Amino acid sequence: MSELADAAVTDQRLVRGARTRRTILRHAVDVASLEGLNGLSLGRLATDLGLSKSGVQTLFGTKENLQIAAAESARDAFTEAVIQPVLTTPRGATRLRALVEQWIRYAEAPLFPGGCFWAANLADFDSRPGDVRDALVRHQQVWRGLIAAELRCATEAGEIADLDAELVAFQIDAVLMAANTALRLGDTTAVDKVNRIVEGFLHPS
Amino acid sequence: MSELADAAVTDQRLVRGARTRRTILRHAVDVASLEGLNGLSLGRLATDLGLSKSGVQTLFGTKENLQIAAAESARDAFTEAVIQPVLTTPRGATRLRALVEQWIRYAEAPLFPGGCFWAANLADFDSRPGDVRDALVRHQQVWRGLIAAELRCATEAGEIADLDAELVAFQIDAVLMAANTALRLGDTTAVDKVNRIVEGFLHPS
Repeated sequence: MSELADAAVTDQRLVRGARTRRTILRHAVDVASLEGLNGLSLGRLATDLGLSKSGVQTLFGTKENLQIAAAESARDAFTEAVIQPVLTTPRGATRLRALVEQWIRYAEAPLFPGGCFWAANLADFDSRPGDVRDALVRHQQVWRGLIAAELRCATEAGEIADLDAELVAFQIDAVLMAANTALRLGDTTAVDKVNRIVEGFLHPS
Repeated sequence: MSELADAAVTDQRLVRGARTRRTILRHAVDVASLEGLNGLSLGRLATDLGLSKSGVQTLFGTKENLQIAAAESARDAFTEAVIQPVLTTPRGATRLRALVEQWIRYAEAPLFPGGCFWAANLADFDSRPGDVRDALVRHQQVWRGLIAAELRCATEAGEIADLDAELVAFQIDAVLMAANTALRLGDTTAVDKVNRIVEGFLHPS
């Protein structure tokens, strides 16, 4: 084969590999949202998707790498569904309300079949130190940081009364996690609760 | 053997059975707090404790019965550690503060090695309808009900400003669950956060 043809074959393989990787990760995230990241294994995913175990192993190496890749894939999906849509809204109280609204939508018509990926997995991995836990915690910190930043914008602009942004972000995140559980249990009053609690923080001074 | 001797043998067996049952349940709760109730199986517990699988099976029957018995055993231990000690305190704000203090102690020097039993298992079982989930949810409802009842006492006695007891109980429970995760992750600021948040609800009108 010519060098060009060689390169084309390699490109084809890379494309195929990337596509298979995405398919596997999409399924891995679904499984992990329902049964936890610990329910993942290279063999199980291979069986579920009708792939060879050695093929899945070539793409991910170890179970831990697969778990981390699934956590990152869930984070990307979350960012696209919850965070990106609000980036055009004005910063401060308006953007915070939009974030909460997107989050509720994310938990109500779940992006992942088991509901919030972090609610399901942080509770499981909080007692298991390691790279998987670190990946999950990083996402939680970024998310709380986003909420705190909008709260700070809102107080600085005089939109809302002065408050401790870190403390309130911790509280709002806690309430969203509890609402995710309530929604899974069929308790539809959770959305109204979230809205009333968040509005409680956003009243003008 | 005489009837009396017969009865004595039966009694002995019942006592031994009850003791073995307690031993198994204590271990089951520990395993479930770390790996989730789904990590439990009759065979696994038998192996861990050096018992015969058929013996464990005789005592519990099915995996689901074992899971429900473990949830009930965790609830009894929780009641003894967190609720009973506060029953002598005056009702209202004082008892609520005492409840939160006991709860923090429960999460800090964990009664169960994986931290809060319900934080670990509700997140896992919220998407799995059935008797195990129902047992977990019942406990959460009783716990939130306790918090709401003390809040109502406190408002009725004029100790604290008027508030929506159900909504605030939902919020306090959510914050305690988040603090449990934070404590597992080594974030010691969580206790201070909980105290500040709870005190925020207890200010006089």
